[in-house]
Amino acid sequence: MKKTTSVKPFSESRFSAKNARVVLAGVPLDATGSFRSGTRHAPSAIREISWHLEDYCLLDGRSILEAAFYDAGDVHLTGDLKNNLREIEKFTTAIIRKGKKPLLMGGEHLVTYPVVKALAKSHADLHVVIFDAHIDMGDSSRKMKLSHACVTRLILERLGSGKIFLLGARSGSRKDEELLGDVIIHSSEGPSEEMLRTLRSRPVYVSVDVDVLDPSAAPGVSTPELLGWTFHMLDEALGSLAGLKNIVGADVVEICPPCDPSGVTSLIGASIVRKLIYLMDAK
Amino acid sequence: MKKTTSVKPFSESRFSAKNARVVLAGVPLDATGSFRSGTRHAPSAIREISWHLEDYCLLDGRSILEAAFYDAGDVHLTGDLKNNLREIEKFTTAIIRKGKKPLLMGGEHLVTYPVVKALAKSHADLHVVIFDAHIDMGDSSRKMKLSHACVTRLILERLGSGKIFLLGARSGSRKDEELLGDVIIHSSEGPSEEMLRTLRSRPVYVSVDVDVLDPSAAPGVSTPELLGWTFHMLDEALGSLAGLKNIVGADVVEICPPCDPSGVTSLIGASIVRKLIYLMDAK
Amino acid sequence: MKKTTSVKPFSESRFSAKNARVVLAGVPLDATGSFRSGTRHAPSAIREISWHLEDYCLLDGRSILEAAFYDAGDVHLTGDLKNNLREIEKFTTAIIRKGKKPLLMGGEHLVTYPVVKALAKSHADLHVVIFDAHIDMGDSSRKMKLSHACVTRLILERLGSGKIFLLGARSGSRKDEELLGDVIIHSSEGPSEEMLRTLRSRPVYVSVDVDVLDPSAAPGVSTPELLGWTFHMLDEALGSLAGLKNIVGADVVEICPPCDPSGVTSLIGASIVRKLIYLMDAK
Amino acid sequence: MKKTTSVKPFSESRFSAKNARVVLAGVPLDATGSFRSGTRHAPSAIREISWHLEDYCLLDGRSILEAAFYDAGDVHLTGDLKNNLREIEKFTTAIIRKGKKPLLMGGEHLVTYPVVKALAKSHADLHVVIFDAHIDMGDSSRKMKLSHACVTRLILERLGSGKIFLLGARSGSRKDEELLGDVIIHSSEGPSEEMLRTLRSRPVYVSVDVDVLDPSAAPGVSTPELLGWTFHMLDEALGSLAGLKNIVGADVVEICPPCDPSGVTSLIGASIVRKLIYLMDAK
Amino acid sequence: MKKTTSVKPFSESRFSAKNARVVLAGVPLDATGSFRSGTRHAPSAIREISWHLEDYCLLDGRSILEAAFYDAGDVHLTGDLKNNLREIEKFTTAIIRKGKKPLLMGGEHLVTYPVVKALAKSHADLHVVIFDAHIDMGDSSRKMKLSHACVTRLILERLGSGKIFLLGARSGSRKDEELLGDVIIHSSEGPSEEMLRTLRSRPVYVSVDVDVLDPSAAPGVSTPELLGWTFHMLDEALGSLAGLKNIVGADVVEICPPCDPSGVTSLIGASIVRKLIYLMDAK
Amino acid sequence: MKKTTSVKPFSESRFSAKNARVVLAGVPLDATGSFRSGTRHAPSAIREISWHLEDYCLLDGRSILEAAFYDAGDVHLTGDLKNNLREIEKFTTAIIRKGKKPLLMGGEHLVTYPVVKALAKSHADLHVVIFDAHIDMGDSSRKMKLSHACVTRLILERLGSGKIFLLGARSGSRKDEELLGDVIIHSSEGPSEEMLRTLRSRPVYVSVDVDVLDPSAAPGVSTPELLGWTFHMLDEALGSLAGLKNIVGADVVEICPPCDPSGVTSLIGASIVRKLIYLMDAK
Repeated sequence: MKKTTSVKPFSESRFSAKNARVVLAGVPLDATGSFRSGTRHAPSAIREISWHLEDYCLLDGRSILEAAFYDAGDVHLTGDLKNNLREIEKFTTAIIRKGKKPLLMGGEHLVTYPVVKALAKSHADLHVVIFDAHIDMGDSSRKMKLSHACVTRLILERLGSGKIFLLGARSGSRKDEELLGDVIIHSSEGPSEEMLRTLRSRPVYVSVDVDVLDPSAAPGVSTPELLGWTFHMLDEALGSLAGLKNIVGADVVEICPPCDPSGVTSLIGASIVRKLIYLMDAK
Repeated sequence: MKKTTSVKPFSESRFSAKNARVVLAGVPLDATGSFRSGTRHAPSAIREISWHLEDYCLLDGRSILEAAFYDAGDVHLTGDLKNNLREIEKFTTAIIRKGKKPLLMGGEHLVTYPVVKALAKSHADLHVVIFDAHIDMGDSSRKMKLSHACVTRLILERLGSGKIFLLGARSGSRKDEELLGDVIIHSSEGPSEEMLRTLRSRPVYVSVDVDVLDPSAAPGVSTPELLGWTFHMLDEALGSLAGLKNIVGADVVEICPPCDPSGVTSLIGASIVRKLIYLMDAK
Repeated sequence: MKKTTSVKPFSESRFSAKNARVVLAGVPLDATGSFRSGTRHAPSAIREISWHLEDYCLLDGRSILEAAFYDAGDVHLTGDLKNNLREIEKFTTAIIRKGKKPLLMGGEHLVTYPVVKALAKSHADLHVVIFDAHIDMGDSSRKMKLSHACVTRLILERLGSGKIFLLGARSGSRKDEELLGDVIIHSSEGPSEEMLRTLRSRPVYVSVDVDVLDPSAAPGVSTPELLGWTFHMLDEALGSLAGLKNIVGADVVEICPPCDPSGVTSLIGASIVRKLIYLMDAK
Repeated sequence: MKKTTSVKPFSESRFSAKNARVVLAGVPLDATGSFRSGTRHAPSAIREISWHLEDYCLLDGRSILEAAFYDAGDVHLTGDLKNNLREIEKFTTAIIRKGKKPLLMGGEHLVTYPVVKALAKSHADLHVVIFDAHIDMGDSSRKMKLSHACVTRLILERLGSGKIFLLGARSGSRKDEELLGDVIIHSSEGPSEEMLRTLRSRPVYVSVDVDVLDPSAAPGVSTPELLGWTFHMLDEALGSLAGLKNIVGADVVEICPPCDPSGVTSLIGASIVRKLIYLMDAK
Repeated sequence: MKKTTSVKPFSESRFSAKNARVVLAGVPLDATGSFRSGTRHAPSAIREISWHLEDYCLLDGRSILEAAFYDAGDVHLTGDLKNNLREIEKFTTAIIRKGKKPLLMGGEHLVTYPVVKALAKSHADLHVVIFDAHIDMGDSSRKMKLSHACVTRLILERLGSGKIFLLGARSGSRKDEELLGDVIIHSSEGPSEEMLRTLRSRPVYVSVDVDVLDPSAAPGVSTPELLGWTFHMLDEALGSLAGLKNIVGADVVEICPPCDPSGVTSLIGASIVRKLIYLMDAK
Repeated sequence: MKKTTSVKPFSESRFSAKNARVVLAGVPLDATGSFRSGTRHAPSAIREISWHLEDYCLLDGRSILEAAFYDAGDVHLTGDLKNNLREIEKFTTAIIRKGKKPLLMGGEHLVTYPVVKALAKSHADLHVVIFDAHIDMGDSSRKMKLSHACVTRLILERLGSGKIFLLGARSGSRKDEELLGDVIIHSSEGPSEEMLRTLRSRPVYVSVDVDVLDPSAAPGVSTPELLGWTFHMLDEALGSLAGLKNIVGADVVEICPPCDPSGVTSLIGASIVRKLIYLMDAK
């Protein structure tokens, strides 16, 4: 796995492309947002700030210096959306074939779709946990389908009913209601015991759209939405997934550095990446 | 009611000046602040961001597309404060005479005074609920009276003792203490049962100075004040007013877009405007 | 011609869709940039600032209030690049069929391509004047073809050799050199007498990529390039085109409001739009 | 002359209220602007940056440490425009009565009006040199008269025809044309020999609206206007006034720090203040 | 005690250098940070915003106008770190000798070290309460010792084991663990009853590194760290120290105004300074 | 020569540490500035923006892809100024010993001093060309000597009289005058013929303090100074040095990214680095 472009990698790592268990990649896709652009800058902003975190956290007793990850650089993108989705799927497939677990740093939420497609090829019963303020079912009458606002529907069409857990969702379109029966929604709470039981025996993908957080915690996202979670709630929810030994991939998306003047949202991105590394680095 | 100036209106609306129940107007008054200027930009910032909210909220089950409101544009202002206050009163009176309920987007808090004056003419027993970090009794020895820092006193002099409920107030001048007997203050809590009982049989005006919120939630106000409410608390407090069928007018004031680099405070403004529309659109 | 979306129009106009000679439209295309995103915000930023300019300029003795233009709103775009280019071409064709001259506010420079395609259908001998810091011949080996960095090549392939005048170009790729014979380049000077003579008898399209200006004049563009023109030079160069009675369309592109903290570049955009209106409003 | 409020003064000074020849004051008036607010922050921004300039300039051979000026602090303002204009006039009159020359740091351009009124009382034949991008004759049909956009007309009505020299003016309203006979306008050049001859025998007031400069030099003003002067041109024009021994007052206005992210425009303000001190400190 | 440089002082005070009990000073030290610079601007930012707070707080019933403090200006610093530490120690010693209590506004956290050294000379059993996200034990193998990231270790070496209470610490280096026995850590809670009992009979110094707060409350610090305290928690923790009659000095450090676009973190600084004045002004 | 820290290198290069002629290094020293901090961020900002420049310039006909340079990363710095100066000198010496020419990206101007010291050891008759707005002779009575404001004096003391050419200097302290005889100053013009003749037979070091430019061209520097050069003038002045075959080292200093919101000054930095590479890459 050769680095695709010259980037400053995520944090200091003592592992190589060969002996890492988790492989990071940046996916600066920023094409279908209708409001504030800039998610293309998220991978480099997350990487930059990752170097300024102390390695050791007193609260969970872990040091990033001991985690088996490797940063493979950015997926190379052009202006052609369909081609870009193919490239992301190919890149992910290459990681999987080497026996590694992919961890993507978006870019917009549409990134999740080709990654899930790549993973679903080898994991027939893939389940997906999405943290997101928006239902993202799109609205076929008004909007195009290949959009960050339709990603949940795209995944639903690929995986089928009952396999998507939507945590923190609080906003959408009145017309989405009819589709809501196919996904399991927890608006104000983390994973339930029942949900964890279901997931324990399945391959699981975790997608964190940072707008699941309240704008007071994470102002720098493309489409901020009020009445969201605190970072503490998200951190706990991710922590509760630690029992799952079968998390096969993950992503963190929708951070928008130009809307994040204090850098706090990129800091949150780096912290979530660390947490996801810990979740996937389990033996 | 003809639009006064060319503005991009608040959200998509399916109602006209004729069949709307609630009439919005922008009031970019920004004259008496002593600290950070810029509230004149709030109406356009609130309107702009309103177009980027999804129409439907899962938490309260309402869609803005079903609400009967109309945006009448901005009140035309000049540099002459007294003339401006007269214009605002006239504009409000015109809305009332058409049988509509006025909902103003400030501008600074002084905006509330001429609006209350206009409503008090037809509603003898008008009661006012003010969300505000500051007592705003001014200080007659040092400051002029026609100021955003005196708006509570101006309303008190107009309506008389016992008719103002001040929610979230936590800051003022030592000299204000003597006047505090005439208003009912709840610093850290929403409307009490007793307060709601009192208001149920009276015409009610609701004024939301966004600095009632903690700066962590709403940094972009003219005079931020620590130890304030979370947005969740304000949202709940406004929700608890839903039982009142006699809210005759409302405003949201003191948002200062130049001090709001991430746009979160304008987003809060748009969300409060929606909530106030729902409160006044009740049949 | 019905407005496609609700926007605050460009300046005050006394003309309607019917009696205007020039029809403006916003094209917030922002898909193929590789560096700084945000050109999608340019149409609304240019329109907003246009309202704050005085109507009358002492230097050229013209008042915008007397110019026959109409703002038709924004072309509706999605995330699918090819579809977007088709929409822009269709929108432009509709304007031409009504006997009006199109004036587009981008968005990125790729916008020029479908507009030129639409105009070339009815103007067989169309010539194009491009103000741009970059040769924009792309580099077929590394980059995709449908990109803002290839727009000159795309137009060259459509119109043929000898019909493109490139003013202000100073930067490119070493590999571009072989293609330079097909376009006429003036790096540091405005239109020559010979160029004006050639254009006088042909239909002419004018495309202004604002990065033709030096970053000291116009910092807020996607890809700023040093050693550029002053605004005064550009203003004079545009003025020298006033003798041409056959300017059939124009655009101003690549303004990037998030990179323009002082708003100066949007102001330049509004000023160029005015100038282009004057050029096309000639009887 | 007692300091009115606690401010960090302009630069280091070795002179007191008693032995200074020039008395500075801040006038944070910011009430009648229709576009971008924030001129109220200019006095403190100019003062702050003045401390970071080296004392000595190689180009004119002067050191600010040798100039006889004193900073008297800010004029105390409220939200009542008419009262504020009275206060400014009173403050200026107090300076004049002590035999000092007033140098005001605005605030908006309307500040000039009460200062000129105060000076005209003791200087019957007062002439005024205004550097300004705008004619500022207002437009009596649409706008109120007490506005920064009418300041030239207000002064014209006070002093009479032929006494105002308008340098750098390039923008206005078509309706202003009829009034243009009463002022002498130099749009693109500094003071002419004839103008200097006229002024040599009269008391002269100098008002510098920083928007006379091109936005590339001074982006941080309330109403930037293209095709303006370079700072070098303004510096030379001010230098050419050095022969006048009868400059009795001056101001620098319209700097808007919130629109000046790099601080360059405040730096220009501090540099102009220095230059004006040198002009008035002549024996 | 003569003012060292010309500054706008902290708030309005009715006390002089003579009759004040608490003496404030700014210490713009900003030399050893490895991430974001700018703490040198904190003293002036805190002072500026202090003038915009109302004097009276309804929640604690205190008015700053009644507190016996005096602002002595800034300690004069150069580029030589060791010399600077000596100057800070000397400045503090001068305050102590006059029978006053020092309250420093940093600057970076290293400021605390020379202040504690000065106080430890006259207070043999000095105990220190540090609010800080970071353990700040440094890492002798990689970093220099005189650094803001080593301040806890420096104080530990000076005062000895068992005298430092570290509140809010949650981040550090894996290698710090061996040193943790010598300090008392409360990561997620305020002062315990036992801690308060210990401190009641000892001289106490209070150092508030504002990064103890969560970035959602205080984004504008040099090294923000997630999962921190709310401002309400810090305010309560400081309030719980009110019973101690022997607080002999205090500081507030690490505020970084260039990273605080909304000014909220400077506001927090001013509020903590007030609270610390109240704690030390007790008779 | 091993990379000292993980950085994204300057531009794409086809040369290695072995076969490059010019070796770049970042020196994020940011310790002695008295005004605006942030030069420590310049090396990474310059490198980042260098990737967004096209490789080929039509004006000088050169492509950066053909230049023999290598980016060795950043010199590792701590908070101890004297130690840092030693480290910079050591790092430079290591480059020289390998037969390469050092090109440093500061950081503050003091960086030039240890680099010149390193070069003077092997080049007895070293001459220095400094582009700088400030004389930088310091002021021994008020300021410390190891400061960015004293760098010219430090070099003067090391090399002796007559060997320093100061281009663009326009600001200083009255007390500097006595020292001015020892340096050759050209305030408003580029290198004279005589100067070039002198330099042709000597080893030359070129130091570019970006504040030599006018703030309209380069706002993002630590201490902007008006009446400076345009970028075009600086570009020409550097171009005129192309005849010198003996430029043995160079630097670009004082860019301050936090004061450069549009990124234009970092772009200038990258452009100067390119130009300096071309000057030193001559065979």
